[in-house]
Amino acid sequence: MHDETSALVAAAAFSEIDRDAVYRAIFTRRDVRDQFLSAPIEDEVLQRLLTAAHHAPSVGFMQPWNFITIRQAGVKEQVWQAFSRANNEAQDMFGKDKKALYRSLKLEGIRKAPLNLCITCDRTRGGKVVLGRTHDLNMDLYSTVCAVQNLWLAARAEGIGVGWVSIFHEADVRQILGIPEHVAIVAYLCIGYVEQIYDQPELQKKGWRKRLELADLIYEEGWGNDTKTIGPEAETAT
Amino acid sequence: MHDETSALVAAAAFSEIDRDAVYRAIFTRRDVRDQFLSAPIEDEVLQRLLTAAHHAPSVGFMQPWNFITIRQAGVKEQVWQAFSRANNEAQDMFGKDKKALYRSLKLEGIRKAPLNLCITCDRTRGGKVVLGRTHDLNMDLYSTVCAVQNLWLAARAEGIGVGWVSIFHEADVRQILGIPEHVAIVAYLCIGYVEQIYDQPELQKKGWRKRLELADLIYEEGWGNDTKTIGPEAETAT
Repeated sequence: MHDETSALVAAAAFSEIDRDAVYRAIFTRRDVRDQFLSAPIEDEVLQRLLTAAHHAPSVGFMQPWNFITIRQAGVKEQVWQAFSRANNEAQDMFGKDKKALYRSLKLEGIRKAPLNLCITCDRTRGGKVVLGRTHDLNMDLYSTVCAVQNLWLAARAEGIGVGWVSIFHEADVRQILGIPEHVAIVAYLCIGYVEQIYDQPELQKKGWRKRLELADLIYEEGWGNDTKTIGPEAETAT
Repeated sequence: MHDETSALVAAAAFSEIDRDAVYRAIFTRRDVRDQFLSAPIEDEVLQRLLTAAHHAPSVGFMQPWNFITIRQAGVKEQVWQAFSRANNEAQDMFGKDKKALYRSLKLEGIRKAPLNLCITCDRTRGGKVVLGRTHDLNMDLYSTVCAVQNLWLAARAEGIGVGWVSIFHEADVRQILGIPEHVAIVAYLCIGYVEQIYDQPELQKKGWRKRLELADLIYEEGWGNDTKTIGPEAETAT
């Protein structure tokens, strides 16, 4: 099993052009809810996106993820109903000041996006003891989130928008998709080609919440020690 | 607050060259434990990495993360001691077949990497009710993991290696860094320039576990329905 033909290889920094492409994916990635076109995602492109997800880091090389593709209108409709019930509950949790704005926001593209993708985490995949997960049982969930973010950035580069829907009771989607109890639902994504995206996060643009100052979030050597060396955030215009 | 000057903008797919750069970051990113050079990370470069992290998606635009930079040898030594105690406990959890191999693996670069970075999640930041977190309280942790993965990919493009250490009791590192109870430790990262990285995940190369077949992980319309349209993973050589 020990592969002696594999080895350390050179790992230089990318050229400035290539580096800027990576940053551009990061800075222009958006949570898309309404800009989806109806064109299907070609199998070859979906395969690239899922390969990107599959190359995420995973604790103990556990690779705990599965990917359930959903294209059938009937299945999407059931998931949308689950979202809609939960979203009605969510509305009532907000105070007067936010409720009207909350109601005005479109928070999912389940039926509009040609492809939905449920990304799950099999909590049992690595056996009883998993290297690196001995002291933090969340690590497998975190690995799965890394897969989501890989896919999201790859999708941006492919001209494909992704929106993460988190407003539903897990039990409802578990039942609709027949997901067993030992498998956690980590992300339910709406995926489709886009021609336009917002130039800022949609919740910022629509007045829900502002971007925090990066410098306020950085401490040195311990919690609460303000940084002296890091200024405002780097230029993100690309 | 509603910014009318901001709007939808064009969001075409990247050029093939730029797209390939994004995939190259994804496919050649490694969890680095021992290849760190001693050269410090310049403030300007660290600022780019943290800006990339800060532009991760976050539930309800909550931005729940903080970043604690650690460069002092004394602080690193305390964290390494916390790792070492936990790693001794971890060794004893593995059966005979894996214990010797486990012991032979280097699982952290805390003292070797010039920079350590603790990325946390303030569970209270968005107030009592957070948009999108009403039905899954883990969503703020997941947002923070997206920040970790953004930083990790940006670091690859900068020629910087990152290793995620997860083997410690959270209470130990919380005490060392003075992190308050309402703030969760999501990731403790070792960061430094690298000249070489493994051409495969280190745990794969060292015989711990093999990469799973992507096609086996994909289902259609529901759990357990094998895919008919997606073949083996896309070519990842770059």
